[in-house]
Amino acid sequence: MADLKEMRFTLSLLVKNHSGVLQRVVGLFSRRGYNIDSLSVGRTNDDGVSRITIVILGDTSIVKQIKNQVEKLVDVIRVSIITAENGIQSELILIKLSTENGNRTNVIELSELFKAKVVDVTHTTITLQLTGSNNKIQSFLDLATPFGIVELTRTGITAIGRGEKSLKDTPYEQL
Amino acid sequence: MADLKEMRFTLSLLVKNHSGVLQRVVGLFSRRGYNIDSLSVGRTNDDGVSRITIVILGDTSIVKQIKNQVEKLVDVIRVSIITAENGIQSELILIKLSTENGNRTNVIELSELFKAKVVDVTHTTITLQLTGSNNKIQSFLDLATPFGIVELTRTGITAIGRGEKSLKDTPYEQL
Repeated sequence: MADLKEMRFTLSLLVKNHSGVLQRVVGLFSRRGYNIDSLSVGRTNDDGVSRITIVILGDTSIVKQIKNQVEKLVDVIRVSIITAENGIQSELILIKLSTENGNRTNVIELSELFKAKVVDVTHTTITLQLTGSNNKIQSFLDLATPFGIVELTRTGITAIGRGEKSLKDTPYEQL
Repeated sequence: MADLKEMRFTLSLLVKNHSGVLQRVVGLFSRRGYNIDSLSVGRTNDDGVSRITIVILGDTSIVKQIKNQVEKLVDVIRVSIITAENGIQSELILIKLSTENGNRTNVIELSELFKAKVVDVTHTTITLQLTGSNNKIQSFLDLATPFGIVELTRTGITAIGRGEKSLKDTPYEQL
C-alpha cells in the first residue's frame, strides 16, 4: 500500500457524534483518491464528540489541501496535523506467530526485546500484543516475518499533542 | 453514545485494499442507523488486504443481521463476530490528565496500578498511554476523571481469534 517516496502524515479530527460524519470524512478521502494508511475512531471524554485519527501517505502540499477540505465538512469541529515533534503517536498490534520448527524460544526472545505481551499460546502459535510507533512496529514485523505470521491486526495510529493544551482549545502547530 | 441496555459486539472484517471499500462499509452502518462505538482499520501482512474492526452497540439479532449485510459488500473477504470467549480484544488510549491541585503523586500512583506508561509531562499535566479491554479502560477513566481529563484519544478495539487458526482460513465460531 505504501509508496516509499511518499511520507506518512497524521491528521487528528474532533467531530460531532452525529450519524454520517464518519461517512462524510471517509467519503472525501475516497472520492479524491487519497491513500489512507490507517484510520481509527473512538469516543472522547465529551459524550457529544468523537476523535478520528487518519494516517495518510502523501507530500506536504497534499496534506495541507486535505486538511482544508476536511475542515469544511459538516460536524467536523477541528483538524490538526500531528507530527513527531508536536505529538505522540502510537498504535497497538495483535499478531499470531508460528512456533513450528522449534521457533518458540526465538519468538519469546523477540517478544521480550520489544516488550510485547503474550496474550495466547497454542502448540503451534504464540499471539502477542505490541504497542509503539509505526517505526517500532515495522522493525518488529521485519524480524518476526521469518517465523511465519499466521495473522495480525492493528488498530492504526492514534495521536495526541505534547504539552498541556488540548486539541479542542488550541490546535497544534501546523505544517 | 452508549445505551446501557445494549451490548457491545465486535466485528472483524478482512477486506481487499481497493479504493472505496471503507466507504462502503461505513456507509452501510450510516444508512441503516447502526451505532458504531469504535472503528479501526489498518494493513495486514498481506499487501492486498486490510483488516477492519468495528464495535457496535446492539442486540444479538441486530449483529447477525449486520454481519450478513456486510458480507455481501463488494471487496469484503470475510466477516466474523469476535467475543470474549473466542478472541482477544484490546485497545490503546492516550490520555492527558491535569496535575494541578497537587494531583501529580495520585496520578502517578493510578498509572502504576494500571501499568500505564508516562509519555509526556508538563508543569500542569501528565500524558499516559494505556492498553487493555474496554472494561479495563473504562475502570481507569472512572478513576481518572476526578483529576481532570484535559483530552484523550483512543484507537478503538482491535481483535484477534484465540487458537492457531487465522480469520482468513477459518472464520471464528459464530454467535
